[in-house]
Amino acid sequence: RTGPRERSRDGPARRAGGAGRRAVSWSFGGIANRPMNAAYHERRRPGAGHAEREDSPLSSRRFVRDLTEDRLGHPEVGDAVARLKEVLEYNAPARKVNRWPAPGQRTSESLRCALAVGWCIELFQAFFLVADDIMDASLTRRGQTCWYKKEGIGLDAINDAFLLESSVYRLLRHYCGKQPYYLNLLELFLQTGYQTELGQTLDLITAPISQVDLSRFSEQRYKAIVKYKTAFYSFYLPVAAAMYMAGIDGQEEHENAKAILLEMGEFFQIQDDFLDCYGDPALTGKVGTDIQDNKCSWLVVECLRRVTPEQRRILEVKTWILHGAEGL
Amino acid sequence: RTGPRERSRDGPARRAGGAGRRAVSWSFGGIANRPMNAAYHERRRPGAGHAEREDSPLSSRRFVRDLTEDRLGHPEVGDAVARLKEVLEYNAPARKVNRWPAPGQRTSESLRCALAVGWCIELFQAFFLVADDIMDASLTRRGQTCWYKKEGIGLDAINDAFLLESSVYRLLRHYCGKQPYYLNLLELFLQTGYQTELGQTLDLITAPISQVDLSRFSEQRYKAIVKYKTAFYSFYLPVAAAMYMAGIDGQEEHENAKAILLEMGEFFQIQDDFLDCYGDPALTGKVGTDIQDNKCSWLVVECLRRVTPEQRRILEVKTWILHGAEGL
Repeated sequence: RTGPRERSRDGPARRAGGAGRRAVSWSFGGIANRPMNAAYHERRRPGAGHAEREDSPLSSRRFVRDLTEDRLGHPEVGDAVARLKEVLEYNAPARKVNRWPAPGQRTSESLRCALAVGWCIELFQAFFLVADDIMDASLTRRGQTCWYKKEGIGLDAINDAFLLESSVYRLLRHYCGKQPYYLNLLELFLQTGYQTELGQTLDLITAPISQVDLSRFSEQRYKAIVKYKTAFYSFYLPVAAAMYMAGIDGQEEHENAKAILLEMGEFFQIQDDFLDCYGDPALTGKVGTDIQDNKCSWLVVECLRRVTPEQRRILEVKTWILHGAEGL
Repeated sequence: RTGPRERSRDGPARRAGGAGRRAVSWSFGGIANRPMNAAYHERRRPGAGHAEREDSPLSSRRFVRDLTEDRLGHPEVGDAVARLKEVLEYNAPARKVNRWPAPGQRTSESLRCALAVGWCIELFQAFFLVADDIMDASLTRRGQTCWYKKEGIGLDAINDAFLLESSVYRLLRHYCGKQPYYLNLLELFLQTGYQTELGQTLDLITAPISQVDLSRFSEQRYKAIVKYKTAFYSFYLPVAAAMYMAGIDGQEEHENAKAILLEMGEFFQIQDDFLDCYGDPALTGKVGTDIQDNKCSWLVVECLRRVTPEQRRILEVKTWILHGAEGL
């Protein structure tokens, strides 16, 4: 199904089978022993976050500063860089960073690179999320108003999404440009971007606006969407990046890791889809709306594999009543 | 000013100071002796274009095939790749290619790379144009309906723009991945993308929707917008790419070339702005609308440098009457 954990719950998505990205609920210690993705689950509310050590040489604010101090050298684009700063702070805000080095603590070159790559993955996701929210007509994201819905932003947010994407490559170059694995990381991010875009394309094709057509919700299509739109960037990307940084660049090793990680991605998404309906909101921290949103979820795909023709007809009619759509 | 040659003339842009890209009217023989940018002036009408040699090993169709034959290896994303093909064919269509090698003619490795990079520059522009047209609410582009205005496309075009951008890096890797200048080209395109986005940001900030504020139209701002939004990608990028391919990668040589090319870009844009108002449509091939569109054009910037307070007031009132905007 195509409803991510982070998806807006404040209002029904206008698109059936919307295109929000999925967040990843497991954490791993591969990069700098930091649970990189765990932070996705902290719904960000102004004033409610854990304070970050502002003075840490590796804090997220440090990365924002790295990305926006250009203005000193190029005053003519100072206003544009100020906008970039706003975009970064709103869409890739400071997170709880328990395990980051304390101020003054010496940080090795490799740790600095690893933390920067962790930030690149955050920014990479922010790029897709800002754009997806526009395509989905979403209202909120991570407990705050979607960027494009903020007053005075609107479709200018498309260019802001591009700025977030460019920030990934600027950080990579700044922190890892001299490393032997730099080109591998560049190509990994570029390739992952393309795969995620293919996944988004598939998702958009499978559930176009105001067309309810259950025959599109096949198991094969479900797996392809999950793999391309979520699993590559959420599961393979962070581990593959760590592998390259550790000097592991053999094709066989990467294929092996990919085979495992993409399966983990699929498992994660199936579990996420299951919990969307049957999970206890007190435990999952969210109220699922996949059915209301007509998502190509694992549940509807499984359901369609098992129904009798009469049951299928009931499902079609109920879906039609929910969405008032064409195609019956 | 911010009205590009290629901008829609079929209807008034809804945004003042819209964000369309400027096309370049000069040609150069640096890459494969092909006037790369001259083609931008051929308004594309279905059936009206010059036929391309379909069987040429280096035709644009060949590049489209290179970018879309993936589907054989990955049938699960076949539908997404079919969409990519549509996007490529509509937004980066075949052009007149007089000087391209005839079928059967031997093409050297370096020529193949050079032609591929030429295509990358076309695709790079297409990426920005598709996105800009959405931000600008434009109606037509190069004589045809804007991609996002086509039936059934809408804001999904944002993802299509991403696909065009990814196509640049896929082609680069495919054709130049083994070349010693590959990393230089990668970083050049990434850096140019960032600069163009900064220029677009400046442009959006300078003339926001429904706010007429002539005080924003300063000479300094005009120069910054032109430089970042147009001159880097239209003038420096193609020549810098050719330099890298020719093994010229010294910082000094690039700074020298950049200084000249950015000035050429500014000159080009000033001339373009001048001709928008005073050019003979029979010669320029277009009817200018910069004044009606409230563009931050060279003319209004020069005008504001010279007006008396009374004249300035008249300009403000006339602008206000044209746009019914706030800010007076």
